[in-house]
Amino acid sequence: METRRAESFSDGVFAVAITVLVFNLLPIAKHGIRFDELVKNAWPQYAGYVVSFLTIGIMWLNHHTLMAQLAKVDRVALVINTFLLMGVVAVPFPTALVADNLAHGTKVESARLAAVVYGLLLIAISIAYSGMWMYVAANQARLGNRRIRTPLEATIRFSAGLLGYVAGTLVAGFGSPYVALVIYAAIAVYYLFDHLPDPTGSDAAQPAEAAADAASDYGAGPPAE
Amino acid sequence: METRRAESFSDGVFAVAITVLVFNLLPIAKHGIRFDELVKNAWPQYAGYVVSFLTIGIMWLNHHTLMAQLAKVDRVALVINTFLLMGVVAVPFPTALVADNLAHGTKVESARLAAVVYGLLLIAISIAYSGMWMYVAANQARLGNRRIRTPLEATIRFSAGLLGYVAGTLVAGFGSPYVALVIYAAIAVYYLFDHLPDPTGSDAAQPAEAAADAASDYGAGPPAE
Amino acid sequence: METRRAESFSDGVFAVAITVLVFNLLPIAKHGIRFDELVKNAWPQYAGYVVSFLTIGIMWLNHHTLMAQLAKVDRVALVINTFLLMGVVAVPFPTALVADNLAHGTKVESARLAAVVYGLLLIAISIAYSGMWMYVAANQARLGNRRIRTPLEATIRFSAGLLGYVAGTLVAGFGSPYVALVIYAAIAVYYLFDHLPDPTGSDAAQPAEAAADAASDYGAGPPAE
Amino acid sequence: METRRAESFSDGVFAVAITVLVFNLLPIAKHGIRFDELVKNAWPQYAGYVVSFLTIGIMWLNHHTLMAQLAKVDRVALVINTFLLMGVVAVPFPTALVADNLAHGTKVESARLAAVVYGLLLIAISIAYSGMWMYVAANQARLGNRRIRTPLEATIRFSAGLLGYVAGTLVAGFGSPYVALVIYAAIAVYYLFDHLPDPTGSDAAQPAEAAADAASDYGAGPPAE
Repeated sequence: METRRAESFSDGVFAVAITVLVFNLLPIAKHGIRFDELVKNAWPQYAGYVVSFLTIGIMWLNHHTLMAQLAKVDRVALVINTFLLMGVVAVPFPTALVADNLAHGTKVESARLAAVVYGLLLIAISIAYSGMWMYVAANQARLGNRRIRTPLEATIRFSAGLLGYVAGTLVAGFGSPYVALVIYAAIAVYYLFDHLPDPTGSDAAQPAEAAADAASDYGAGPPAE
Repeated sequence: METRRAESFSDGVFAVAITVLVFNLLPIAKHGIRFDELVKNAWPQYAGYVVSFLTIGIMWLNHHTLMAQLAKVDRVALVINTFLLMGVVAVPFPTALVADNLAHGTKVESARLAAVVYGLLLIAISIAYSGMWMYVAANQARLGNRRIRTPLEATIRFSAGLLGYVAGTLVAGFGSPYVALVIYAAIAVYYLFDHLPDPTGSDAAQPAEAAADAASDYGAGPPAE
Repeated sequence: METRRAESFSDGVFAVAITVLVFNLLPIAKHGIRFDELVKNAWPQYAGYVVSFLTIGIMWLNHHTLMAQLAKVDRVALVINTFLLMGVVAVPFPTALVADNLAHGTKVESARLAAVVYGLLLIAISIAYSGMWMYVAANQARLGNRRIRTPLEATIRFSAGLLGYVAGTLVAGFGSPYVALVIYAAIAVYYLFDHLPDPTGSDAAQPAEAAADAASDYGAGPPAE
Repeated sequence: METRRAESFSDGVFAVAITVLVFNLLPIAKHGIRFDELVKNAWPQYAGYVVSFLTIGIMWLNHHTLMAQLAKVDRVALVINTFLLMGVVAVPFPTALVADNLAHGTKVESARLAAVVYGLLLIAISIAYSGMWMYVAANQARLGNRRIRTPLEATIRFSAGLLGYVAGTLVAGFGSPYVALVIYAAIAVYYLFDHLPDPTGSDAAQPAEAAADAASDYGAGPPAE
């Protein structure tokens, strides 16, 4: 199957999944709302919305970057992709758990449980994503007509995210669920800026090259359509 | 009408329908959640989510495979497609029925009713899909500029799915609704791997040829865009 | 603005709006469901789902047919399109009204109110659609590089739908809301089959020609992608 | 990354976010609905739906106009875009606040709070949008292969919207929340018609030129697909 169709379907699923997050905010609205209800009590709702939005946004970006390097996908890649999407679509569920259980007055066991489930889902998604990456890297001669750069470096980077989620989940289970939420947010922010060209950094060359490469792939000449 | 527009609209409907499944999980989340509420009581919710996600994912894949072989669609194909989508969009409803009625403590009549409705919808979708396949196969000279391979074999394969859903529905009605859910899951998993090239199997030639064919259609030369 | 982007956004809105209809079915599911709850009491929910699904499906098809004839859209067309989409997205609301108020035991005033609101929304959408059609037909030299065929005939056809919805709304208000629902369904089914080539009918030439035209536009030569 | 993918994902998010607005209408529907419940009590729901629909519609249009001028997007633009989408997706939440708190019988403090939150979100979105515009304008040599016209004029226009939202929010907080809602609606309507070619206006030349430019970009020759 050509990559583009799978990508278009996946993009649609990501777009809907990221938008579903707002449904966790809607119940806050009610007749005769008070300031403290809106701000003080509902902050875990907003925090969950922001962290999950950034997380799904990053996942889309990475998913997209991976798919863009492939000329076609086979059935195994599509199966892995289906499991990956199954995880991404489920993200609003632990987000709701966290939003309902990190507010003032919740038992710490419930807050912990919520943050652990959130972390476990992120770990599952990371594993599916790493699996897809490894499968694609191992079959790039057959699947990709664009060279996948530095698979080792990329693997390390993705594993870093996985390790971060494992650390966050452990903190959620044995330490503070609030700190765990901060860790999940930090990982999202890290990935948000990870591939930015940094002219002062030592690994600037690779992203810059990639950008130039992308430019030569897409940016040359008048637009085709 | 060109196939691509109908496909793009259908892809969007599939993407939203598959994401709607998470709404069955959201009510599990509540203030002060306990471990047994989250795990022991809610398992039919998770099982329903996984089975329906895989089922809609497979349906998208098969729908996509069928549409990709057509150069254009006519009004009859679009009408059949509308009924097919009407079934796919409804999948979250029997999923919710199953999720609410297979947990511990539900009357067996309710569990059976839920699993039967789930099976009946899957049968209806299979019939719509088979109808579309047959219509397309009968009109391929007019609709398709890509040769549809081995319509007989494909018809048998699709009928296998239909028969499986009928068997599952009968088991749901007269036997165990839990076994029926396992059957629905097994059909989804079967289709997930059905078209994988299997070098040891006797029918490996056909998918391998198809892959080569797809490669020559899409993979040659630099990307067009 | 090129038509394609506006069409792609509109397609997305149609795809989500049609899928939202399933949310009216989800509350039917509950713990310990009984046969009479599922079938006898909930039939207006299913009827509303089917009628609205077909109606939105037809609207997408007609919207699509109109947009496909344009090479570009201007700001006025986009503004009309925005109001058209505002109507389409609202369809699940009167569908829910009808589903909640046509069951056994509802006061006839409520049932009538629900069916009237449903009809009024369909009238509003028809007017927006007719407005867009007339604007496009009046500006086709500027907007369209594909000839819009027989605007008079098309105008009559669209007006037929509008008149049908007006008739249905009047029946809903002064006669039976159940008959009104049947009228709305009949209009959807009529449009579903309206443009099918009918070799025995007197107006068969036009759709057949259009099909040939579409074929020469899209079907010739190898696929571009 | 090529612009098209980011645009397609953003379009999907806009399409879903605009459709989510109907969920604020669904709870109005109930068994045995009365005329006064449907019309007199629920008007803030309808007003909120219309204003937010137009607002998101405009935002999509402007977002689209901006993206269409770019040949590629870099990581910074994608990060800004993610925050912009985070705001757009959240719009149904203050819409629900307004819908629940502007009806007859609500305390004015609650109505004010709702209208202020609505305004603050619109301000945040405007800032994200302005930020994206400024970043793109400052990097157009690198990002855009189509000339961005009159960045100064465009900046003024966007700032006008931002100032309007600030004024509306102040009116909501210290004056009437109802007037604030009218201001938000007026801004949406203003943008809806802002770029229409107006042959009698002094700034007609620029949009007319832009239209001609767009025509030469997209409209010449037979359609590519």
